Amino acid sequence: MNRKLGIYIAMSLDGYIAKQDDDISFLTDVEQEGEDYGYSKFIETIDAVILGRKTYDKILAMGIDWPYGDRKVFVLTRTPKPDSGNIQFCSGNLPELISTLKSQKGKNIYCDGGAETIHQLLQEDLIDELTISIIPVLLGDGIRLFKGGLQEQKLQLINVKSFEKGLVQMHYVR
Amino acid sequence: MNRKLGIYIAMSLDGYIAKQDDDISFLTDVEQEGEDYGYSKFIETIDAVILGRKTYDKILAMGIDWPYGDRKVFVLTRTPKPDSGNIQFCSGNLPELISTLKSQKGKNIYCDGGAETIHQLLQEDLIDELTISIIPVLLGDGIRLFKGGLQEQKLQLINVKSFEKGLVQMHYVR
Repeated sequence: MNRKLGIYIAMSLDGYIAKQDDDISFLTDVEQEGEDYGYSKFIETIDAVILGRKTYDKILAMGIDWPYGDRKVFVLTRTPKPDSGNIQFCSGNLPELISTLKSQKGKNIYCDGGAETIHQLLQEDLIDELTISIIPVLLGDGIRLFKGGLQEQKLQLINVKSFEKGLVQMHYVR
Repeated sequence: MNRKLGIYIAMSLDGYIAKQDDDISFLTDVEQEGEDYGYSKFIETIDAVILGRKTYDKILAMGIDWPYGDRKVFVLTRTPKPDSGNIQFCSGNLPELISTLKSQKGKNIYCDGGAETIHQLLQEDLIDELTISIIPVLLGDGIRLFKGGLQEQKLQLINVKSFEKGLVQMHYVR
């Protein structure tokens, strides 16, 4: 089994992952005690995380516990910085980085955003698995998960699950 | 029970209902003998159809059998034209038309597009039911079902169904 690169992300029915000002409060509508929508099971299959620099900064600014445990984290940035613990700052070629990671042994690789980084990965057809949770809302406007300007990519539906709060989670492979 | 206004439409996972040139050949990927994805059952609940003028012209140009039987069809147009059989050309106020139709007795009302007409209806918060089929493909670019610039609208998931060809159909009410 090769290492797969996947995304695991929620969007509104109209395709937004946040409002224009990064507001993600629409996600609270589906919060439910004891229901993590498969996240803890998913993250167990992961030992490397890809993040865009802005998303990395946002996580730091949120003041929450570091969400990736001791997993290796690769932050894509135009400004090279020395590594820091498990965090590696990468300013090189993205397809090369992914190709290197996929050639190494390990669990799967998770791109946790942002939309710009996911777009770059889709542009290079590097994403193998997509777990998309659709929140029962039309946000009306905001930051799109899929911003357009890509080549067509056929997907295979592996699984679909619906939840009490109206969230529908679909798992596709490329 | 009041008459409901609904849409019943397919889009790619990235939210497109057609490519930029109106190409909808991605729908053939989910064509299957004997499987109509609930359409014939849905259309039985309908006795009035709303169409944008461009969509109406497109249907005529396709040279197919008239798809709405003897249902009343309301074509939204800026250029008034005399009625023709069951087809009424409407150049007045859209919310007023819908309000009039909803106040009349009858089965439900179906807006069969295009995206611009659906957008206008969403803008006025006039759509009561959304049946959205997600085709397992990233089209990459094209005509969006939800083009943005709307107010937030919470939805309630009523049903979700997946099919052999990987289509996922979700039924929401406003």
